Amino acid sequence: MEFKLAFAGFGVVARGLCEILTEKREMLKDRYGLEWTVVAVSDFKLGSIADPDGIDIDLLMKSVADGDRVDDLDAPEKGWDVLTMIEKTNANTLVEVTYTDVKTGEPAMSHVKAALNRGMHVVSTNKGPVIKEMIPLNELAASKGVTYGVEGVVMAGTPVLNLIDLVLAGNNITEAKGIVNGTTNYILTKMGEGMEYADALQKAQELGYAEADPTGDVEGWDALGKVVVLSNILFNADIGWGDVEREGIDKITLEDIKAAAEEGLVYKLIACTKLMPDGTVEGSVQPLKLPPSDPLSGISGATNAMTFVTDELGPVTIIGPGAGKRETGFALLIDMINICRSS
Amino acid sequence: MEFKLAFAGFGVVARGLCEILTEKREMLKDRYGLEWTVVAVSDFKLGSIADPDGIDIDLLMKSVADGDRVDDLDAPEKGWDVLTMIEKTNANTLVEVTYTDVKTGEPAMSHVKAALNRGMHVVSTNKGPVIKEMIPLNELAASKGVTYGVEGVVMAGTPVLNLIDLVLAGNNITEAKGIVNGTTNYILTKMGEGMEYADALQKAQELGYAEADPTGDVEGWDALGKVVVLSNILFNADIGWGDVEREGIDKITLEDIKAAAEEGLVYKLIACTKLMPDGTVEGSVQPLKLPPSDPLSGISGATNAMTFVTDELGPVTIIGPGAGKRETGFALLIDMINICRSS
Repeated sequence: MEFKLAFAGFGVVARGLCEILTEKREMLKDRYGLEWTVVAVSDFKLGSIADPDGIDIDLLMKSVADGDRVDDLDAPEKGWDVLTMIEKTNANTLVEVTYTDVKTGEPAMSHVKAALNRGMHVVSTNKGPVIKEMIPLNELAASKGVTYGVEGVVMAGTPVLNLIDLVLAGNNITEAKGIVNGTTNYILTKMGEGMEYADALQKAQELGYAEADPTGDVEGWDALGKVVVLSNILFNADIGWGDVEREGIDKITLEDIKAAAEEGLVYKLIACTKLMPDGTVEGSVQPLKLPPSDPLSGISGATNAMTFVTDELGPVTIIGPGAGKRETGFALLIDMINICRSS
Repeated sequence: MEFKLAFAGFGVVARGLCEILTEKREMLKDRYGLEWTVVAVSDFKLGSIADPDGIDIDLLMKSVADGDRVDDLDAPEKGWDVLTMIEKTNANTLVEVTYTDVKTGEPAMSHVKAALNRGMHVVSTNKGPVIKEMIPLNELAASKGVTYGVEGVVMAGTPVLNLIDLVLAGNNITEAKGIVNGTTNYILTKMGEGMEYADALQKAQELGYAEADPTGDVEGWDALGKVVVLSNILFNADIGWGDVEREGIDKITLEDIKAAAEEGLVYKLIACTKLMPDGTVEGSVQPLKLPPSDPLSGISGATNAMTFVTDELGPVTIIGPGAGKRETGFALLIDMINICRSS
């Protein structure tokens, strides 16, 4: 299949994908029959260009690497905002990687809907729309015969949604629990080594793991969003922000960590969704003290991990990266490979 | 797709599969369009029956559960050995689960070849044939337009081959290393708790993890077979038994374990295959001392785990069961679901 890609947003993740696509052009064609051109880019800060015959990717990447605007390049079309781009482009696939408010889901929600309605595939790492309207968006995609791929939403490129769909097929899954926020896991790991909370947070900020306002991570909001997504994917739960119990790590002290260590236990921020016997779904984000026998207890630093409790195999755990430019860009490629396979 | 199944061997794993197929009949039909009947069974000890219209699975399972022979049941055909069954049956899929010599690959090798040559799919948990002739067997299957599914050979139902093929797609994998023998991991875990080697081995035998002759496990032969399979699948390596460095756990003493613990390290029997920069493949099985930061260090008891080193995601680890009646039977079902998906 030949992808004609339109990018909504051209930040770090978009560039990570473009790097991989460029470096692996031959391999992707040989292994999966996956070919591609970029035909449109619209970025809030960097401007927009479109060329139905394909934009020179090397020039584009060089331009943004040099700190130039996208629309410094020559192109037949310029100035389209994202919705105009979706309306006018000849792309068959939208790569939706804008900066988006996770609570309203905008502007990504409008972009995803418009693209699906035009019969375009959408691949996206944006949590917002799936937290708000995962099930309707999947239904819309199905009705148009296209795919809405969101592998990158939960654990970046660690292919947790593919694992559920492709690899654990045939199982009934009753629970998923994991470490889905690298920033808080890094902080807890450092505290386990004897560092105070404030120092560990500062270190995480210096390394670029935590943002200047760390609320989204340390109060558990990021993990909560992922619980909502997993609940909807695994259990078709149709739950939202307000339905998940949430407790962050901001109240955990070094003394708590030391006391746990004396019991042989280790604190982890665990995101969990459970299918209850009555058919309801219970989601939670909370710091839990784990014994060494739990594979999640050994996950250190910014690594992510998820345990699925299955009926045939018992617990199955996957461990991998939860962030990073290439790693998150790669999640978009996984979705593209799946589209290829089913086309 | 409707599977007409012929069983070569009707021991524990075959019955595990039949249990799952029976209990999940509706689910498999709804989710994957997978329907099935058993039309032939040939077991060296229990005799053989065949019925082109389908054998009553409940009667069959009850019969073997009661300790009766398979051929105590009424059936239009009886007395077929496996090769005769493959020649005469109306089955479209052979479930190959005989007891097989891993060094010669027989009798499974002959069964697999005969079935593929007749244009039947084969699903099998038998290591023997894949160790001996994985690549030719896959080529034979491809030439006949059928599948030779071997998900169960490496980590039973933990879907490690599916992970490589479906989930890590798009990555270049340069190394796979893991704990693929539950018996030795159980023994090392017990020694880590202070038990002597001989006592831990006896305990493993009492629990049914280790056989009366534990050589295959403790000297690393079972793990070696899995290294050969992984090398061939991951790297198309065409290596055999003699090409893999092998060291078991039988020389490890409690003193070694304690000395490692004092350094903060833990012994694990690690099966590894690596693609070297010059294109050659190096396989090994050896006890290694791992730091706590290695996810494999925390795998305790009979659990299995495998880390894949990838170019896009770095290390990705999967942890799950490596043995068990249902767990291994389930591996056969994974292969059947894949056949359904590609049919």
